[in-house]
Amino acid sequence: MTLIRERRRIGVIGGARADAGSLETAAQLGRLIAGAGAILVCGGLGGVMEAAARGAQSAGGLTVGILPGSSPSDANPFIDVPIATGLGFTRNSLVAMNADVLIAIDGEYGTLSEIAFGIILGKKVIGLGTWDIRGVLLAGSPEEAVGLALRSVSPSDAAKDGKIGR
Amino acid sequence: MTLIRERRRIGVIGGARADAGSLETAAQLGRLIAGAGAILVCGGLGGVMEAAARGAQSAGGLTVGILPGSSPSDANPFIDVPIATGLGFTRNSLVAMNADVLIAIDGEYGTLSEIAFGIILGKKVIGLGTWDIRGVLLAGSPEEAVGLALRSVSPSDAAKDGKIGR
Amino acid sequence: MTLIRERRRIGVIGGARADAGSLETAAQLGRLIAGAGAILVCGGLGGVMEAAARGAQSAGGLTVGILPGSSPSDANPFIDVPIATGLGFTRNSLVAMNADVLIAIDGEYGTLSEIAFGIILGKKVIGLGTWDIRGVLLAGSPEEAVGLALRSVSPSDAAKDGKIGR
Amino acid sequence: MTLIRERRRIGVIGGARADAGSLETAAQLGRLIAGAGAILVCGGLGGVMEAAARGAQSAGGLTVGILPGSSPSDANPFIDVPIATGLGFTRNSLVAMNADVLIAIDGEYGTLSEIAFGIILGKKVIGLGTWDIRGVLLAGSPEEAVGLALRSVSPSDAAKDGKIGR
Repeated sequence: MTLIRERRRIGVIGGARADAGSLETAAQLGRLIAGAGAILVCGGLGGVMEAAARGAQSAGGLTVGILPGSSPSDANPFIDVPIATGLGFTRNSLVAMNADVLIAIDGEYGTLSEIAFGIILGKKVIGLGTWDIRGVLLAGSPEEAVGLALRSVSPSDAAKDGKIGR
Repeated sequence: MTLIRERRRIGVIGGARADAGSLETAAQLGRLIAGAGAILVCGGLGGVMEAAARGAQSAGGLTVGILPGSSPSDANPFIDVPIATGLGFTRNSLVAMNADVLIAIDGEYGTLSEIAFGIILGKKVIGLGTWDIRGVLLAGSPEEAVGLALRSVSPSDAAKDGKIGR
Repeated sequence: MTLIRERRRIGVIGGARADAGSLETAAQLGRLIAGAGAILVCGGLGGVMEAAARGAQSAGGLTVGILPGSSPSDANPFIDVPIATGLGFTRNSLVAMNADVLIAIDGEYGTLSEIAFGIILGKKVIGLGTWDIRGVLLAGSPEEAVGLALRSVSPSDAAKDGKIGR
Repeated sequence: MTLIRERRRIGVIGGARADAGSLETAAQLGRLIAGAGAILVCGGLGGVMEAAARGAQSAGGLTVGILPGSSPSDANPFIDVPIATGLGFTRNSLVAMNADVLIAIDGEYGTLSEIAFGIILGKKVIGLGTWDIRGVLLAGSPEEAVGLALRSVSPSDAAKDGKIGR
């Protein structure tokens, strides 16, 4: 296991309301992200955010939720490290800042703003049935999306093997 | 003339770098907005933001610039009321908050984030040669764009005639 | 009259709830600030903020309110240029950023945070019956406070006379 | 061990520059916080922030740093979960939001702003050789400060024993 600090951070972005298929996709993304030893970063609320966090926790992963409200207790039950911001939807840029790479699922305009901030920050944004925006790399399955995400993180940013974890 | 408080606020969003055609479009938008008695709101920096503010000032209008940096003096020379935020590009949501309606010209991902926040806030977003996003109302000319913008602002939000201005 | 852009901006900070004496002091500060041709910047809500804006408007001044909420219509009725931020009390730092100098009246912990941010930003903070914090210059009357404020703004920041206003 | 989510979060606030005594106090606070099973939250940079995080990590604790910049890699080497905000010193309010209780050491005006936000949020603020502000509970030693901090967190907010950690 690697140090928390050195683990890759993969953001999953998508709507607070989503259909059953998107929720299952999100949960599968969470499981794959945790399985790869990466940390899940998301917006900390319901829908896609909760499903991804639930999936990641079920596979033993660590989850971070960047919340719009000012209370950490607003987080969904599957967030290990809730971060309150009090910024409302203005916090969307912070979700993009705190991931090495983003995977967007479905989603409405909040997701669109996060895609935009991710690209502004020079991060790879991978899409699964989401906005077909220039600059978004479309994936056909959760497996492909997580594979692309892991490969996009440069070795210098990524986890080093062989360290003792905490 | 109406009270400043009661004047409609029209946001013009677009890139800090833009080609000559987009800059002329922005300047024309600024002139039309000022000519209609509305206040121009923008991001306060260069490119489309500066051209629109220059156009608005040339027609006697009032200009507000919501800046990413922490110093009001970062504003372009055509901003009457510079507002420093220190938020970096996270300030994009504040541009959308402070306009009754948005007109997007050209632009890259910062503009895309502002379009997204405008729609999240329930505001009309009018596009001129910009991102063709679901929810953006495309216009064919600056005149049409400003006409659409003015009509989109509900009477209760808009300027009332006959008041003494300040 | 000078250009809006070149007018000094004086912030008045204090509580949303204040006693009658503090409110009268705030109104007097507003009148003196407007009388000196400076712009009043405040937090845009009630109490000291509203009294100062009312005073400034009554003397023909221009008022800017930096609001915690996401709607410009949250401003008190005496704000000419309401700026919505959606940041909650995190917006306190933006009040400090957008004034050349601050005058604090009475106030609780929100005022204390604004005093702190003003000093961090290297601005003069003048106090009238407020927190007696190292670095705050105490004044004995509104007249003295505004006099100190006007003198603290360096000529390069301040209004130049003889320009035609807008 | 308790779930990360259920562990108490204690903020340590203080200057990026501090004398040797304050740094040793900060490191001792970090060790005591970690020893009590609580998470250390701080501003993520140098000085008191780094010393506290170093102390916490040395005792096997988890550390969260809420950073002013937009890159998680700005964090000091002892931060496990760096959170980038891009807000500059405006992020100070987020440090207060993300702790159940705050301990202030020494510090200048940034620390003062964090004390103010802590009290606004209704949190206990404990001081060790810092600003003597109404509302701050003064402690005489790191042991007393951490003891007060732990007792101030209500049982409903605090860690429950006997759960299996992750």
